[in-house]
Amino acid sequence: MKHVIYHEMGNPSDVLKLADDEQVALKSGEVRADVLASPINPSDILKVAGMYGIKPNLPEVPGGEAIGRVAEVGAGVTHLQVGQTVLLAAPGGKWRQSFVGPAAGFIPMPDGGDLQQLSMVAVNPMTALLMLRDFVELKPGDWIVQSAANSAVGTYVIQLAKKMGVKTVNIVRRESLRDDILAMGGDAVVIASEDTLTTDIQNAADGNPIRLAIDAVAGTTLTAMVEALALGGTAVSYGAMSMQPTQISVQSTIFNDVRLRGFWLAKWYETATPEQKQAAFGELIPAIMMGELKSTIAKTFTLDEIAAAVDLAGQGERGGKVMLLPNG
Amino acid sequence: MKHVIYHEMGNPSDVLKLADDEQVALKSGEVRADVLASPINPSDILKVAGMYGIKPNLPEVPGGEAIGRVAEVGAGVTHLQVGQTVLLAAPGGKWRQSFVGPAAGFIPMPDGGDLQQLSMVAVNPMTALLMLRDFVELKPGDWIVQSAANSAVGTYVIQLAKKMGVKTVNIVRRESLRDDILAMGGDAVVIASEDTLTTDIQNAADGNPIRLAIDAVAGTTLTAMVEALALGGTAVSYGAMSMQPTQISVQSTIFNDVRLRGFWLAKWYETATPEQKQAAFGELIPAIMMGELKSTIAKTFTLDEIAAAVDLAGQGERGGKVMLLPNG
Repeated sequence: MKHVIYHEMGNPSDVLKLADDEQVALKSGEVRADVLASPINPSDILKVAGMYGIKPNLPEVPGGEAIGRVAEVGAGVTHLQVGQTVLLAAPGGKWRQSFVGPAAGFIPMPDGGDLQQLSMVAVNPMTALLMLRDFVELKPGDWIVQSAANSAVGTYVIQLAKKMGVKTVNIVRRESLRDDILAMGGDAVVIASEDTLTTDIQNAADGNPIRLAIDAVAGTTLTAMVEALALGGTAVSYGAMSMQPTQISVQSTIFNDVRLRGFWLAKWYETATPEQKQAAFGELIPAIMMGELKSTIAKTFTLDEIAAAVDLAGQGERGGKVMLLPNG
Repeated sequence: MKHVIYHEMGNPSDVLKLADDEQVALKSGEVRADVLASPINPSDILKVAGMYGIKPNLPEVPGGEAIGRVAEVGAGVTHLQVGQTVLLAAPGGKWRQSFVGPAAGFIPMPDGGDLQQLSMVAVNPMTALLMLRDFVELKPGDWIVQSAANSAVGTYVIQLAKKMGVKTVNIVRRESLRDDILAMGGDAVVIASEDTLTTDIQNAADGNPIRLAIDAVAGTTLTAMVEALALGGTAVSYGAMSMQPTQISVQSTIFNDVRLRGFWLAKWYETATPEQKQAAFGELIPAIMMGELKSTIAKTFTLDEIAAAVDLAGQGERGGKVMLLPNG
């Protein structure tokens, strides 16, 4: 069965290799699924490159999330049927044609949804939901600000905030993205600038207090967002696309009571209870099924095309998610 | 009655002037007290210099906290007697011989204590107590780290942490302070360095997880403290003696779940309930009365000597608190 593997960390299109292995017999309690669609997330790329919070256990098959179809169930597995659509939530890389794991790691999905859209639920929409929900208690009419608003997480933040009645100031790097962001439901768009970003953000919110900043850029962008926050506001980091540390002044932390936090989805999956996970998926999956929550797919690739796929996923201006279809 | 006043912000020993005024008659519900002792706190100096989170309402009498003795009570004041020792907690500057305010702003103090030590309870010991108590739930045996450990707040942190059974790593700038810090009850002393501060802190705690960082320096010191924290640890800023912003990386916030906060005592006094304030004073005052909680007094001054007093208070290496004795 075809799969992607790497033996050393490095530039993904160099170190990721296509390999093949024999299908092994299922043990009791295990399930085998054909992998249908797996998005290439920034965390996948960063882990291969050795820039992630968890180092790979080499050699390793990459791929953090995927959707599949049950192909075979081991002895004792009663709640899953062959042919059923499942989210592949068991540990282990998903960039392979066939994925085996303990039955508890296969989450049954409703029929009739868009498989590629549903394949992304566990990472980007979940990140957006938890950052909007777990740091500040937002009420309808509250304002937030986010950077990298045209990223996959950014677009989910816009859609989820709109469902919550929360207003968004969206920072992007190019004026050409403005109409897309507004069409998606963003309330205001600000073009990232070195000099005036803080006041641009505050003006975009019509001077209303901004209670939450969601940042994937770090560096001067996050500094400006922190300085735009209202008294007692919270800034949540989930990425550092600028590769820069962030300067924070005591004017913000002491006198404006701003709180700086980070969000790491992998840690949430480690510590959340099954009930918390079920509740979060229960919010997201119906919204994706109904088309209320979606991401643009830039391009799809097979496993054979992994080098081109990760190269495209590594580009800033790709215009959507890169999706692997391991079984074509 | 003699008092200190300033008409413009600036270097305190230049702009602070001695003045005199007539004693006015008390209104109903007011109390007059002779001011016996008032410490010069960094917040006093910063406010005069225009570097504080609240701008002065010029012309203004400075002085944030003091202890006094009731000299006269207005009509309707029944719970205070002439001659009683009181903390002067009503708004208005305390660097004056005679202080008038509404009766609720005069907190009765036990007799027989050290007046100069008791005069400091509302600012530095309160700051230390609240930072140790309101950000992380510390258990006996837990480790914390603090900078400026030989400052007044720093020495209160050491004494209060010891009472709680919490172990302290104490950062100072000079090796000569080590023995003092250890004698006071500090568990470990680290000399501030640019290069190895993070590992020095971790080694000083014998590799135990450090759950809280308390910082008055900002800049590279706070960066190193943040990087020394355990997973999920909290860093609390209450000052910026280095006058530098602090660089924070996403390795700390995202992957190590470190939280950066600020603490501003003035805001706490604005928002805490009377019960919360009473409980906090109820912890601190007995400990000061019993000599468990104390600060070194570097030197005392009269109001006439205000320029020399604020000059000494502005020096880094003064070896204790500068105290004004407005009635000599």
